[in-house]
Amino acid sequence: MKGLPRPSIGITMGDPAGVGPELVLRALHDPEVRATVHPVIYGSRSLLRRVAAAASLPWPQGLRTVAAGAARPAAKATVPWLYDTPVSEPIEPGRAQASCGRLAAGWIEAAVCDALAGRLAAVVTAPICKAALHAAGINYPGHTEMLAALTGRKEVGMFFWSPRLAVGLATIHIALEDVAPRLTLELVLATIRRVAAAMRSAALPSPRIGVLALNPHAGEDGLFGDTEARVIAPAIAAARSEGIAATGPLVPDTAFRREALARFDAFVAMYHDQGLIPFKLLAFEEGVNVTLGLPIIRTSPDHGTAFDIAWQGQASPASLIAAIRRARDMAAAKLETGN
Amino acid sequence: MKGLPRPSIGITMGDPAGVGPELVLRALHDPEVRATVHPVIYGSRSLLRRVAAAASLPWPQGLRTVAAGAARPAAKATVPWLYDTPVSEPIEPGRAQASCGRLAAGWIEAAVCDALAGRLAAVVTAPICKAALHAAGINYPGHTEMLAALTGRKEVGMFFWSPRLAVGLATIHIALEDVAPRLTLELVLATIRRVAAAMRSAALPSPRIGVLALNPHAGEDGLFGDTEARVIAPAIAAARSEGIAATGPLVPDTAFRREALARFDAFVAMYHDQGLIPFKLLAFEEGVNVTLGLPIIRTSPDHGTAFDIAWQGQASPASLIAAIRRARDMAAAKLETGN
Repeated sequence: MKGLPRPSIGITMGDPAGVGPELVLRALHDPEVRATVHPVIYGSRSLLRRVAAAASLPWPQGLRTVAAGAARPAAKATVPWLYDTPVSEPIEPGRAQASCGRLAAGWIEAAVCDALAGRLAAVVTAPICKAALHAAGINYPGHTEMLAALTGRKEVGMFFWSPRLAVGLATIHIALEDVAPRLTLELVLATIRRVAAAMRSAALPSPRIGVLALNPHAGEDGLFGDTEARVIAPAIAAARSEGIAATGPLVPDTAFRREALARFDAFVAMYHDQGLIPFKLLAFEEGVNVTLGLPIIRTSPDHGTAFDIAWQGQASPASLIAAIRRARDMAAAKLETGN
Repeated sequence: MKGLPRPSIGITMGDPAGVGPELVLRALHDPEVRATVHPVIYGSRSLLRRVAAAASLPWPQGLRTVAAGAARPAAKATVPWLYDTPVSEPIEPGRAQASCGRLAAGWIEAAVCDALAGRLAAVVTAPICKAALHAAGINYPGHTEMLAALTGRKEVGMFFWSPRLAVGLATIHIALEDVAPRLTLELVLATIRRVAAAMRSAALPSPRIGVLALNPHAGEDGLFGDTEARVIAPAIAAARSEGIAATGPLVPDTAFRREALARFDAFVAMYHDQGLIPFKLLAFEEGVNVTLGLPIIRTSPDHGTAFDIAWQGQASPASLIAAIRRARDMAAAKLETGN
């Protein structure tokens, strides 16, 4: 990071009734965050004040409030900013509320807009509540789909990163029985390419990618399932011919054992739980969700709004801080490689 | 175990070209095995001698050789027995061979026969090689299916047990896309019942069973998949009405996190890798495979023949010894409860 300017990282406050505000306050107290990035918060000053009081957290030093919608300051700031949305509705912690859904969506839109315009190096999003979004008439299955729509991308991918395991998903929010019909050579190849690019953007020039099989025992030579031979193996061969060090199809139930983890820098999983069951077991609090295929860098913590402990001073900012760190490193690698 | 007779546990040597013979030798040196069970080995004396020499292992003290096929001694022995099959074929370590497949299958048949006749309290099987079985014209996907055929049972289940995680599988060796169509209320309920019975047979009278959903996010209220509402939730309700403490459908990717693991004694997974990815991550060397639904008690280590390290003195007997211990405890609980 030495010699590079501190990148401006947009951080959305997430659903106000969840742990997002507390996590943002805690991140603003983190010495590494303060020293290495310029945090730009999309949120509400009055709500942050309420949460700081409720959770007994000090107010972040030097936080500069800028009215949301005001012309963006052009110069690089040395103190964190807060784009402040005035909030008049009563907000209750720990409950899905339409007002919270509206606010959370507005902050995401503003941050994405600033990132597309080049005013942010990356966007980090605190957790949102789908029920609150729906109550506000905003119907996305999640952040990922909303970000794809806002940036005009159709094919985006989910990639989960932690110091112990990195895994990209070929399919996301679909029924398990729809996974096999959805998998095509093109989709698996695109996912391998994106995961390789994501690892390169984390300063790993030749990542070793382990590509999982779909079926138990990798289909046992076609005995149960032919997706391995028909789709996954050809996609791996195509990736290799492009110079990507892809290996597989790997037998899924042994691919994440200790000795196997050491052989690969990242994995490609065919479906949501194939990647996320081992990820959530291994990543503990340091898991980061990275959206691949967007024109902007976007990361987030890998947990939800945790309504049960909202505003109580108990939430750990480890995953949000890991997401900020990851966004910072991806932005730096982008600057260095000119990608 | 105090006051109970030492149960006779049949231990099949597995594929001779794999780690089975070495594991059997090591188990026979284990003080706990020697003190608490009466081991009855189904194997070959000459092969065990060869492997002991190759792996630099001492010969087990007091091992009594009995010609296989001879009338079984009726009295309880105090030393381990070896039912010895004469082997004339040359056997090479680390390679699938038809002769090995024939031998391994013969030992399983003999042990199952003795268990059905009540001469064994349980059977523990060392790993076999499917390719060797196939070369010998014996076509089973694995031990489980072979044991079901030998004991005349159609519906058997796989249950994996370790000190950290116990999980039963509703489906086993089928393609991933066939899982959803295969799941019925009856099958899921039968699996819940079997897992509850297995935990009770391990002296846990009221096991708490966590039942996993099939789809990511448990189908997100039917948004992707209705198996949860149509099949799994009704099966859980039926199990509860029978007095089984079943809970779910659980969101799969968070069900195995540390805080969730503490809430349940065992889990029911809907498909092979949903249960075995977390099991192989968490169980390390202590994993035991238990076949449910057989008229006999049968356990095995959760690993394969490990041809790459066969006869080299490197194989860890931890999983085989855990399987013997588990078989012993299940046999003791059966004696105590009269099940």
